[in-house]
Formats: sequence, C-alpha cells, structure tokens
Amino acid sequence: MKEKLTIIKIGGGIIDDKASLASTLDHFANLEGKKILIHGGGRLATELAGKLGVQQTLIEGRRVTDAETLKITTMVYAGWINKSMVATLVSRGVNALGVSGVDQNLIQARKRVDQGVDFGFVGDVEKVNVEVLSSWLANGITPIIAPITHDGTGQLLNTNADTIANEVAKALAREFSVTLVYSFEKSGVLLDVENESSRIQEISFTQFQELKGTKKIFAGMIPKLENAFQAIESGVDQVLIGMAQDLPNLLAGTTGTKLKYGKS
Amino acid sequence: MKEKLTIIKIGGGIIDDKASLASTLDHFANLEGKKILIHGGGRLATELAGKLGVQQTLIEGRRVTDAETLKITTMVYAGWINKSMVATLVSRGVNALGVSGVDQNLIQARKRVDQGVDFGFVGDVEKVNVEVLSSWLANGITPIIAPITHDGTGQLLNTNADTIANEVAKALAREFSVTLVYSFEKSGVLLDVENESSRIQEISFTQFQELKGTKKIFAGMIPKLENAFQAIESGVDQVLIGMAQDLPNLLAGTTGTKLKYGKS
Repeated sequence: MKEKLTIIKIGGGIIDDKASLASTLDHFANLEGKKILIHGGGRLATELAGKLGVQQTLIEGRRVTDAETLKITTMVYAGWINKSMVATLVSRGVNALGVSGVDQNLIQARKRVDQGVDFGFVGDVEKVNVEVLSSWLANGITPIIAPITHDGTGQLLNTNADTIANEVAKALAREFSVTLVYSFEKSGVLLDVENESSRIQEISFTQFQELKGTKKIFAGMIPKLENAFQAIESGVDQVLIGMAQDLPNLLAGTTGTKLKYGKS
Repeated sequence: MKEKLTIIKIGGGIIDDKASLASTLDHFANLEGKKILIHGGGRLATELAGKLGVQQTLIEGRRVTDAETLKITTMVYAGWINKSMVATLVSRGVNALGVSGVDQNLIQARKRVDQGVDFGFVGDVEKVNVEVLSSWLANGITPIIAPITHDGTGQLLNTNADTIANEVAKALAREFSVTLVYSFEKSGVLLDVENESSRIQEISFTQFQELKGTKKIFAGMIPKLENAFQAIESGVDQVLIGMAQDLPNLLAGTTGTKLKYGKS
C-alpha cells in the first residue's frame, strides 16, 4: 500500500489575512504524516507593484509578467511570504524547507508561447523533479513551495500556484496515495458565491461540465476545478476544495467539496 | 583526513554588477568538491527602500531594520537575489538549494539587545544547524544562503552576511577541512583602498592589530577581518580575502590576502 501524502494549496484572501493565515498554518503544522504546502501570493504583489508604479495587467486571471513584475513576484512569493510562513511553521516544530521551483531544479517550465497575447515571463510547467521531492519527504522534510519556476537557462518564470499544486500532486501520485486540497477563504464550490450554504458536497466531472455550461459556477473557480479534475484522472487519490481555516473538517470530509472520480 | 569544503561569501558591488556576478557564479559552478555560497544584498535593498520611501539608517555599517525594512531585505535577499543566483547555478549544472537561516531551522539568532541603539529586527547568530548542513552536503546539495535568520518564535531577523559566513565556517570546521573565502570587488586587503597594488599578501592577527591601530586599514574591512580571524582561531583551515571574479587564482593562492594562523 502506498504511503499517504497530503498536499495543501493555500491562496486567495488567506495569505492576506494574518489571523486566517496563522490558524491555517497551525492546522498544517498539526497534520500527521508527510505533507507539502504550496502557496500563492495574495494581494501583496499587486500592492507592491502599485507602490512602485509598475502597472499590472491580468488576462484570463493570469498576471502578465514583465521584467519588473517578475522581480516583484519573486520577491513577494519566494521571499517575504515563503520565509514568513516557514518561520512560523519551524516555530511550530515543522521541519519546513521553503523553496521555489528553481531550487534543485524542482520545477522546470517553459515560457508561455505567445498566442496573440504576450504573457511575458509566465511559465507553464514542463517537469516536476520527483526524485528531489521524494528525497526531501523521505528525509522528514516538509517542502513549502513558492510559485516561481525556471526554464533551465537561468530565467525565472512566474507560474500559477494552482497549476503547481496540480502538477506536484500528479507527479507524486505514482509513489504516494495523494490527497490534494485546494484551500481558500470559501467553504467549498458554491452555487452562489455570496452564499456559503450553497456549497456542493460532491461534484463529478459531468456535473461540473453542466454547471459550467449553465454558468452556475463562479468564473474564478473554473480553472481550479479543471486543474483538480485533471489531477484526479491522473491518479491523485482525492481532491478536496474548501476553507483553509477549517482544514481538519475539510480533511475529515465533514465540510468542503469533494471531487468524484469518473465521468458519471 | 577531513573532507575539503569551500565556503564562498560574495557581497558588495559583485551582486549589483551583472557581468561580475555572472563570472563569479561561473567560477563557483566550476569549483570541485563540496561548497557553500553565502551572499549579501548589495545596493538593491537600499534602492527598493528608496523607491518605497522607507528611510534607511546605518549604524556601524549595520542596517537598522524596522518592520518595513525587514520585509524589504527578506524580499530582496531571500527572494530576488537568492532565486536569481540559484537559477543561474542550476543552469550551470549545480544542484543548488537556495535557503535562508529560517529553512529547516538552519540559523537561529537572537534579536540584538538594545545598547543605547535600537537596531530593530537585527539578529545575532546563536546556533548553526550543523546536522542539516551536513545532510545537504552529504546528499550532493550545494546550499546558497541568504542572510535572513529567525528567533525560533516565528520572527524573521536581518543578519550580517559576513557573520553568517563566519559562523557557518566555524560550525562545519569540526567535520570538514574548511576554506573560507570573503570575496568582493577588491583584490584583497589593501593598504590604500584606491590602489589595488597595495594588497597585503599575508596578514597575521598581530599585523592586523598594528594596521588597525595606525588606521592603515579601510574601516569597512575591519569587521570582516575580525570575523575572519575569529574563524581561523576556531578551526577553520584557511581564510582568503579577494576578488570574486578572480576566484580560481584566489583559491590557488596567487592573488588575494591570506590570513596567517597564530598570534605572531
């Protein structure tokens, strides 16, 4: 039987809110067994860009990354957010190692090819270094991963954290029984984004397609779910979506949205 | 016989100058055997603080670190500079792991006690985690260390990179035959800072004290040399000071300044 591995992605408002972040990190510290944390950047990068007068453009939810924005996102994600989280987790007894996709060639990406839109220094994941991740986990290390990758020639690339979570989960599914959790400030996939009680408890790929077709799912949730269904079809044991501060209940299955395997 | 370990500190203008940095990283990539790179921050943190309107104060060459400045230094040192260097080194075939003193509790520090001066979030090194460093080195990993530490309660601290190099070298001297190199944009310890040919080839602690007494040594060099002599008295095999871009000759002993062991 494969060993269990829990991969938690945290993002959205959780990172911007000190109390929510602290409670989420406490839950993460208390999780038994092998685990990986993958974080996004919250509003900090946008705020810093604003202060520095570097204009930000989002296309399809993805930041257009010019040279100055790459510097800002690398500083914020791999610098401030990553090291702050690691310091908290180490103080909670976690043997946390803060890394980006650059370190030990963890995640190689290719610069997104221009299809009418120039995304700048945005990377699409090409290869996750399973050997390095397995070796860290075998040595009792808990990786905390910032969403910066590289192209193998020394160029840093900004990469979507949901995608990184998905790719890391898929890559490790051969070796581990992986639970992948997309956690944020909402209690799950909601039929009405303003109403937490409209949460869907379980969703299949077919239901997702239907809801997408009838525009009953919040647009921001669609790439997350597409990523998540891809993961579950690629051998990831279970995918859960829900509130970061409620991690224990989310993992126990008493809250959040669980993705159903199969096409039915 | 102990295995050889080369610890290179790079700082000063090297980090700010693209060509010098590239050539230094090339030399570092080509170094045989186990090695560690420790870097400072150059002018980037000061520049970013300027752009953000965060006023900077230096006392005795050490930056007073308020909360905003801690954020800036963490972003610049552990984020942009560290990850940029790691990306370059990985592209040169180095199994580089970019870390700060926070990661896996590598370097614990205590907040400097106020002695009439409040340095803010500045840390003095308390303990270097030799087990973690040895394990990385044994696994063929090359650590690239940014000068951010923590106090064990989740608080990040800004720490002098020369001091970190010194403490890491001393901590590993029991296990390895350590060569510690302080490299920067000058060719060594100079009697006249404007004249590269005034380089001292070898210097003993007594000579250093004499030169310090007669103010023949550049003030900025004094803490570096004090650190370095402390290292050599604590079992570090040799300490070399010289030009980063000239690393092979510096290590071969044909340039730079070599510190002499003993009080004579």
